[in-house]
Amino acid sequence: MVIKEVSGGVCAPKGYKANGIHCGVRKNKLKKDFALIVSDVRAAAAGVYTSNLVKGAPVVVTKKNLSDGYAQAIICNSGNANTCNSDGIEIAEKMCAMVSECGDISAEDVIVGSTGVIGQKLSIEPMANGMRELWNGLGDHSDYAAQAIMTTDTVMKSVAVEFSLGKTICRIGAIAKGVGMVCPNMATNLIFLTSDVNISHEMLQSALSRDVKSSFNMISVDGDQSTNDTCCILANGLAGNERIENKGAYYNAFCKALNYCTVKLSKMIAKDGEGATKLIECEVSGAKSLKCARVVARTVIKSSLVKAAMFGADANWGRVLCAIGYAGEDVDIGKIDVDFSSVKGVLPVCRGGYGVDFSEEIAKQILLEDEIKISVNLNGGAYRACAWGCDLTYDYVKINGDYRT
Amino acid sequence: MVIKEVSGGVCAPKGYKANGIHCGVRKNKLKKDFALIVSDVRAAAAGVYTSNLVKGAPVVVTKKNLSDGYAQAIICNSGNANTCNSDGIEIAEKMCAMVSECGDISAEDVIVGSTGVIGQKLSIEPMANGMRELWNGLGDHSDYAAQAIMTTDTVMKSVAVEFSLGKTICRIGAIAKGVGMVCPNMATNLIFLTSDVNISHEMLQSALSRDVKSSFNMISVDGDQSTNDTCCILANGLAGNERIENKGAYYNAFCKALNYCTVKLSKMIAKDGEGATKLIECEVSGAKSLKCARVVARTVIKSSLVKAAMFGADANWGRVLCAIGYAGEDVDIGKIDVDFSSVKGVLPVCRGGYGVDFSEEIAKQILLEDEIKISVNLNGGAYRACAWGCDLTYDYVKINGDYRT
Repeated sequence: MVIKEVSGGVCAPKGYKANGIHCGVRKNKLKKDFALIVSDVRAAAAGVYTSNLVKGAPVVVTKKNLSDGYAQAIICNSGNANTCNSDGIEIAEKMCAMVSECGDISAEDVIVGSTGVIGQKLSIEPMANGMRELWNGLGDHSDYAAQAIMTTDTVMKSVAVEFSLGKTICRIGAIAKGVGMVCPNMATNLIFLTSDVNISHEMLQSALSRDVKSSFNMISVDGDQSTNDTCCILANGLAGNERIENKGAYYNAFCKALNYCTVKLSKMIAKDGEGATKLIECEVSGAKSLKCARVVARTVIKSSLVKAAMFGADANWGRVLCAIGYAGEDVDIGKIDVDFSSVKGVLPVCRGGYGVDFSEEIAKQILLEDEIKISVNLNGGAYRACAWGCDLTYDYVKINGDYRT
Repeated sequence: MVIKEVSGGVCAPKGYKANGIHCGVRKNKLKKDFALIVSDVRAAAAGVYTSNLVKGAPVVVTKKNLSDGYAQAIICNSGNANTCNSDGIEIAEKMCAMVSECGDISAEDVIVGSTGVIGQKLSIEPMANGMRELWNGLGDHSDYAAQAIMTTDTVMKSVAVEFSLGKTICRIGAIAKGVGMVCPNMATNLIFLTSDVNISHEMLQSALSRDVKSSFNMISVDGDQSTNDTCCILANGLAGNERIENKGAYYNAFCKALNYCTVKLSKMIAKDGEGATKLIECEVSGAKSLKCARVVARTVIKSSLVKAAMFGADANWGRVLCAIGYAGEDVDIGKIDVDFSSVKGVLPVCRGGYGVDFSEEIAKQILLEDEIKISVNLNGGAYRACAWGCDLTYDYVKINGDYRT
């Protein structure tokens, strides 16, 4: 199966328009803060959400609106999470209603997102005033939408792919925002995917639910879990493929293309963690179960001490072993092998639970790269998993020490 | 019951001598690295240890030596954790044998500790060469021992108390090292307690096992859990009280005095977390169960985002609510009240899960203090718990970015 990257983000699939503007939720006029994605026709829709008991009002409203399996538009602001506010639901519903007032779209077919500070009132006014401009500017503007959902992200996150289902060319596009509070389960705050594949909403939900377990749930920036995490996908069927209504070859092909997009976004999100200078990938193999592989990989990625060592390009593999030891999984420490690697080479650092001699000079060369892989072989089974994270830096502390002001 | 603080650390109770020297495990000659505590007579002994699957060789040897409930000496080096080394057990046993060779003490009655870098060979040579000096210098030198077990600790941690069991005056003394990798379960790397109380080793173990759940298991610096965490207590009976062999008034009094020491050390350890500028206490009340109270308190204390906000003196209470939401406990978010406080006053920030207006100026005044309390009332039950931690600072990253070199 050939998966080809294409440009266009969420507008790459047939029948989608997007836009992003500055409406005034944020004070900084140079920063877009209001995004809209619209499908020409009503689309099958699916979502996965934060498991935090504190759920942002937009999450509650989106879940309700997606309960019938269909949606047509996505509206989102940055600068304020609309969470822990007594009027939060009302504001989120007003945002949906505003879309409905502009076009021939039911308010119940709108996905709503908000990201930013928690516990401060979100005023509807700047959005109400900007809504017409946002709507009228709809077009091939995936990047504007991607920019408008960014918070402390330093790079825009966008991907789109093309693949075939039989003789039909299909596409999936996506934008995301990540950074702080990125952690299992769910991962980043906001991920919006679009597709022109013709697929039932049940199969779409099944594909998305399965996918996040190996993509967004495997990334961690700081171990905190957001109240607003939302990953939604629209599939409007305009590609014209034979409708996917069961698991089978077409379903699998769709899942594969979806996973290409979500893993790519996961790495972009991890690498752009608040203050991060490096992408860290931890690949765990030889695990007794898939759960074991995933838990161990995530525990290594989440360790503050491992993250700080990676920042310092310090081959302190004892911290990797230590993290594996408190992961809570059944592993035999005496069988573990660990390697560090990057484009500069592979460095074996631990065999059978004990250290092996290595050159500190070569270790530095390998670890000074900006994409580092930690390979852990548990030598106890056939399962494997990857998790992605970043280093812990001065700037993480700086960014989060005074976020509100 | 009156608990009075006294000086003397581990030498405050009757029949204990201590010493600490530089023997050469560390290169820096100004830093002591080798500690010894000896009781005049064989003592009841108890211990709690790391639950990390990767256990330092000293932990393995200490557990074995304490399996009969008695010990007489504690030997410990800093600068190297003697963990993940193929000859680790052999080295730890040699350390015990060296004590036995100096005095009339069985090698099986020696508690052994090591703290420092993981996965580098620990040479017995400098310790063998320094052993005679260490032994000959034994005296009222608790502080020397406390200094010799420090790693990146910036302050020495020591406490001692006096209390009465009936008409008998008794004492408990303790030294500790903390900083990085301080997290539930177990908390700090090394805590050594001494007492002259006459108590059976079964009751001593019972008291210690119960105690750590509300003291050392309730502190977190960075969420990582060390491979070498050890908390041991000796009780040599020289106070001459009626022997404690059952739960009852004297047992309870002993537990209370013990808890005074362990909570005091817990706060010292939390406040001296790597790079920390503040002690953060989270008190959770109104919980459905003790477990719920403890888990919620620890989750708040462990949140990197809460910790970074405290560093920035930023009253970002949404992050506290967010952490409660992912703690995995059954709480009603709509009932939660949160206050921030310090010696400068109390600031209500959240009532019933929603934000309340407050003055940012007053918030800054309160949060700029170096001891901050986060009070969470879940309003859902009668249980409460406290956890202690510290803020997340630039220096944490600096210290841990290149620890080995």
